[in-house]
Amino acid sequence: MGILIKDLGERGLLPILQKFCPPGIVGDDGAVILLDPDRQLVVSTDVLVDGVHLSVGLARPNLITTSGADAGWRAATANLSDLAAMGADPLGITVGLGIPETCPLDLITDLYQGLYDCLQLHRTVIWGGDICRSPVLTLSITALGQASPHQVIYRHRAQVGDLILTSGIHGASRAGLECLSHPEWGQAFPNHCRQTWIRAHQRPRPRLDLLPALRSLPQGTRISGMDSSDGLADAVIQLCQASGVGGQLHRENLPLIPELEPSLALEWGLYGGEDFELVICVDPVAADTLIQTSPFRIIGTIIPQPGVTLETGEGNLTISDHQSFQHFG
Amino acid sequence: MGILIKDLGERGLLPILQKFCPPGIVGDDGAVILLDPDRQLVVSTDVLVDGVHLSVGLARPNLITTSGADAGWRAATANLSDLAAMGADPLGITVGLGIPETCPLDLITDLYQGLYDCLQLHRTVIWGGDICRSPVLTLSITALGQASPHQVIYRHRAQVGDLILTSGIHGASRAGLECLSHPEWGQAFPNHCRQTWIRAHQRPRPRLDLLPALRSLPQGTRISGMDSSDGLADAVIQLCQASGVGGQLHRENLPLIPELEPSLALEWGLYGGEDFELVICVDPVAADTLIQTSPFRIIGTIIPQPGVTLETGEGNLTISDHQSFQHFG
Repeated sequence: MGILIKDLGERGLLPILQKFCPPGIVGDDGAVILLDPDRQLVVSTDVLVDGVHLSVGLARPNLITTSGADAGWRAATANLSDLAAMGADPLGITVGLGIPETCPLDLITDLYQGLYDCLQLHRTVIWGGDICRSPVLTLSITALGQASPHQVIYRHRAQVGDLILTSGIHGASRAGLECLSHPEWGQAFPNHCRQTWIRAHQRPRPRLDLLPALRSLPQGTRISGMDSSDGLADAVIQLCQASGVGGQLHRENLPLIPELEPSLALEWGLYGGEDFELVICVDPVAADTLIQTSPFRIIGTIIPQPGVTLETGEGNLTISDHQSFQHFG
Repeated sequence: MGILIKDLGERGLLPILQKFCPPGIVGDDGAVILLDPDRQLVVSTDVLVDGVHLSVGLARPNLITTSGADAGWRAATANLSDLAAMGADPLGITVGLGIPETCPLDLITDLYQGLYDCLQLHRTVIWGGDICRSPVLTLSITALGQASPHQVIYRHRAQVGDLILTSGIHGASRAGLECLSHPEWGQAFPNHCRQTWIRAHQRPRPRLDLLPALRSLPQGTRISGMDSSDGLADAVIQLCQASGVGGQLHRENLPLIPELEPSLALEWGLYGGEDFELVICVDPVAADTLIQTSPFRIIGTIIPQPGVTLETGEGNLTISDHQSFQHFG
C-alpha cells in the first residue's frame, strides 16, 4: 500500500506538499501576494469538517456543543484571526460548502447567519463560493485581506532578546467546551464564569482590534506573530521554530483563568486552543509601548537555546507540542 | 425535520445563500472585488468531492477513470477556467484538502503534481492552503485573478442582437469519459479520436489563451461570458437568464464531434460538460473581428423572447437545462 496519511500526521504531510508551492510562501497563517509596491494581498484557507472541527450534530448527534450559527461564527473568527495574525485588514471570505443531501436547510442557513454576523461585526462580507453534495458537512473558507508591505506580520522574524507578548485570557474556550460537554463540571463555578467561558467557546472574537496598536509602533519595528488558535504553547513553539530561536515563558505572567485549579488553568492555557488571541515577539522598547497602549502583556523572552521552557519559580519545565492540537496522527 | 437540502437542489439553495452576500456579487464564475480604480481582484471557489466530482478510486474503487494527477490537473483547469471566463489573469490558487487517514500518500502527491503541472503551464502557483482529516477526500480550491475594471467579463450584459460565440469542440470530454468507462464503446473509433477525447477529459485546458483576443477588441466593447464547464446548453441558458434575454442556436454551426452519430454528438455537445471552453455574447462587429483573429465561432443570436431554442433546419427545439449538470436534486 505504501505510506498512508495516518502514518505521517499533518506535520509530516505539510513539508511534502510545500514542495509544490513557491519557496518561502508556506509557514505563516496566510500567504502573502505582492500586488504592487504599496499593497500585499494576504490569503488564508481553513477546512472544517463535521465531526472533526465542527460538532453541529450531523456526524455526532449526541455531542451537540455548537449550534449551526456558532459554528459559522467560529469559522469566520478562525479565518479573520489568521488575517489579524498577518497584520491584514479583511477584504472578505469565500465559502466552499460540501453538504449531505439529508442535511436540514435550517442548519445551513444558521451556519451562514453565524458567518454573516461575525463578518458584519468586522465590516466584511462573503464574496460567494461554491456548494456541492458531500457525504460529510465540510466548510472550506478562504479569507482575503490586504496590508501595506511593512505592516505584514510573519512568524520567522523573532530575535534573541525580543520579548514574547500575548493578548487576552488563554484557556477560556477550553473551559467553555467543558461546561457544554460536562455541565456537572461547570456547576462548581459562578454563573458569570460559565457564561464567559461558553461565550469564549461559541462566539470567539478575532483580534483585528489589536492592529491599530501594532501599526502605531514606529515604522520598521520588527514584529513576529501568529494567533493562538492551536493553543498558546503551539504558537510560541511555532514562532521559535520559524525564527530559529528558543523561548522562555514565565508562569506567573501567563494570562490564565484565575478561577481554575492552577495546574488545570496552566494545561488549558497552554494547550486548550481556539482562544484566537495574538502571540507576538517584539523588542523591549516596542513591548513597553504595547503594554501601555493595548491589551498585550509580556509573558516571556526569546533566548538563543532552541526549545520552549516554562519558568515556574521552582525550576524550568520544557513545553512540548505533544499536547497541542494536530489534525492527524 | 423541516426542509432538507435534497428537497431544494443546488439551484434552490443558491438564492437562499445569496441573501448572505452583498447584492450583485453572486451569479458569475467568480466574485469581483475592487482593489483600486485600476485593478479588480477576481475570486472563484470550487469544491470537489471524491465520488461526486472526483473519481480517484477511494470512494468508488471500481470506477477509476481519473488518476490523482488527472484529478489535480482538472481541478486546476476548472478554477483557471473560471478566471478566464471572468477575463482575469491568474494570481494563484489556495488548496483546502480534506483527507481520509487511510488515503495513500501517493494519491495526494499525484493530485498536487497534477495541480502544479497545470498551473505551471499557465505560469501560476499554489499559495498554500490547509489540510485536515475527513471521512471523504475533498478538494476545495480558491483561485485568485486580477483584471483591469474594463476587462472583467460578467454574465448579465448580453443584449438583443448580440451574437453568441464559443471556442473549441463541445462533447469531447464526455466522449473521453465514455472511452474510459466503457472501453468497448470506444473501439468503434480510430485510435487518434479516442486519444483526443480521453485527453480532453483527463487534461482539459482553461482558455486563458483567448483573453488577448478579447482584450484587443476596442475598449468599451460589451462582452458577456462564462465557461462551458457545466455544458454548452447550461452556459447559453445561464447567460440568457442573467441578461434577461433569450437565445437561438443554429445546429449547423455548433462545434460538435464530427465522428459521432449526429444525435449523440448533439446531446454530448450540449449537455456533456467539462469542456471548459468560453461562451460569449458580443455585438456583430466585435464577433466578426473575433472569428477572424481567434478560435471563436458564431453559434447563435440573442433574441428578445426568453428561453433558448435550437434551429435544426427542420424546426426549432427548446433547449432546457434538465439534462445539464446539477450537484443536487
